[in-house]
Amino acid sequence: MPNEHIVRSFEEQLKRLRELLARMGGLAERQVADAAKALITRNVDLASEVIGRDGEIDALEVEIENFCVRLLALRQPMAGDLRVVVGALKISTNIERIGDYARNAAKRAIVVSQQPQIGSLNGFQWMAKLVQENLKDAMDALVREDAAVAERVWASDAPVDDIYNGIFREMLTHMMEDPRNITAATHLLFIAKNFERIGDHATNIAETVHYAVLGRNLPDDRPKSDASAYTIARPPS
Amino acid sequence: MPNEHIVRSFEEQLKRLRELLARMGGLAERQVADAAKALITRNVDLASEVIGRDGEIDALEVEIENFCVRLLALRQPMAGDLRVVVGALKISTNIERIGDYARNAAKRAIVVSQQPQIGSLNGFQWMAKLVQENLKDAMDALVREDAAVAERVWASDAPVDDIYNGIFREMLTHMMEDPRNITAATHLLFIAKNFERIGDHATNIAETVHYAVLGRNLPDDRPKSDASAYTIARPPS
Repeated sequence: MPNEHIVRSFEEQLKRLRELLARMGGLAERQVADAAKALITRNVDLASEVIGRDGEIDALEVEIENFCVRLLALRQPMAGDLRVVVGALKISTNIERIGDYARNAAKRAIVVSQQPQIGSLNGFQWMAKLVQENLKDAMDALVREDAAVAERVWASDAPVDDIYNGIFREMLTHMMEDPRNITAATHLLFIAKNFERIGDHATNIAETVHYAVLGRNLPDDRPKSDASAYTIARPPS
Repeated sequence: MPNEHIVRSFEEQLKRLRELLARMGGLAERQVADAAKALITRNVDLASEVIGRDGEIDALEVEIENFCVRLLALRQPMAGDLRVVVGALKISTNIERIGDYARNAAKRAIVVSQQPQIGSLNGFQWMAKLVQENLKDAMDALVREDAAVAERVWASDAPVDDIYNGIFREMLTHMMEDPRNITAATHLLFIAKNFERIGDHATNIAETVHYAVLGRNLPDDRPKSDASAYTIARPPS
């Protein structure tokens, strides 16, 4: 029965596509975790490893895109299968960006490690942990085609934004207290922004998974509380 | 001749797709220009307009994605046409991000306008002008299917990075000279980063256009000189 063979083979190709995405997501999770660890432990070697490993993620993005284009050309999938393939293209772009943000955080962690230590970096540890968990859950939702988990991830980015807003104010205060903090605090601000963006991309992945599974979009108004663009701090008087 | 009719109609749909992308790109260009203008002229009303208009770009992204998915499902395009449709999906994501960066720059411009003026904002004007031109050229390359123009845009982002690196150092210096500059300088740093990212996305669009037209990728090593992640500044002694 050649038809059945073709059908099974297409299922196998979708499975292969999910595996490629899961591998790419797993690499990105590790990059995020290691970038945070390098920052908090002032470990320049680990930061350099993160920077060096980013190419693996980029290579997987190219592989996934080529795989998707071949699938579209040869299989001409319809409806649900088409949503999965188009979703895979979008998700690989999200993961590639997450990798870039982790690499940038690692670069900045090297500079921070050479500057005087300022304050506690607990907020960074929490942020990294939260966004890494969201990324992991979004990838699990993808592999298990679980729209409910995807929706939960999509709705759970607000604590990340809250921590980010707290770090933003804290860093501005450190800068104002002592100009010797300015270089480190500036890079820390950008690292926090990197983690916040990683959280956004995890949310985007969850949104795409939800759409691919159910064929309908989540509402426009995701719970979100990043107000840092409006933050004002005053120098100590 | 029904076949000819179908072929012509597909050409018309690709034309329509390019028009949607060109409209989306045009809106984004305007957002970038107005965000920069609002910053430089301390115009809060204009900044608010930019923030309010971002929804139009988001709506176009959804429209383009739906259009592409319909095209893939109903037309099952092959080879070059398939590259154009997959490319359109990627480009609409890039333009949506450009819109987000312009909106974020506008939000921060409002805060900056309420802070003491620091230094000259010439660098911002130049950066905005360059990335806006690159975006315009990338979109022209798309509409005219011109791989040579796309390659030129792809290779011309280095001056943007140079200006960004200069602004990064300048802002750190302003912060160190006077803590009252810290709030404005921090937001200006992020605005510069927004413009730099807009430049990256214009480059990505050019890369996708090049691939869609010729079917082969540009080399990995794009000319790039953003070294700001490693920047160190010292307080005045």
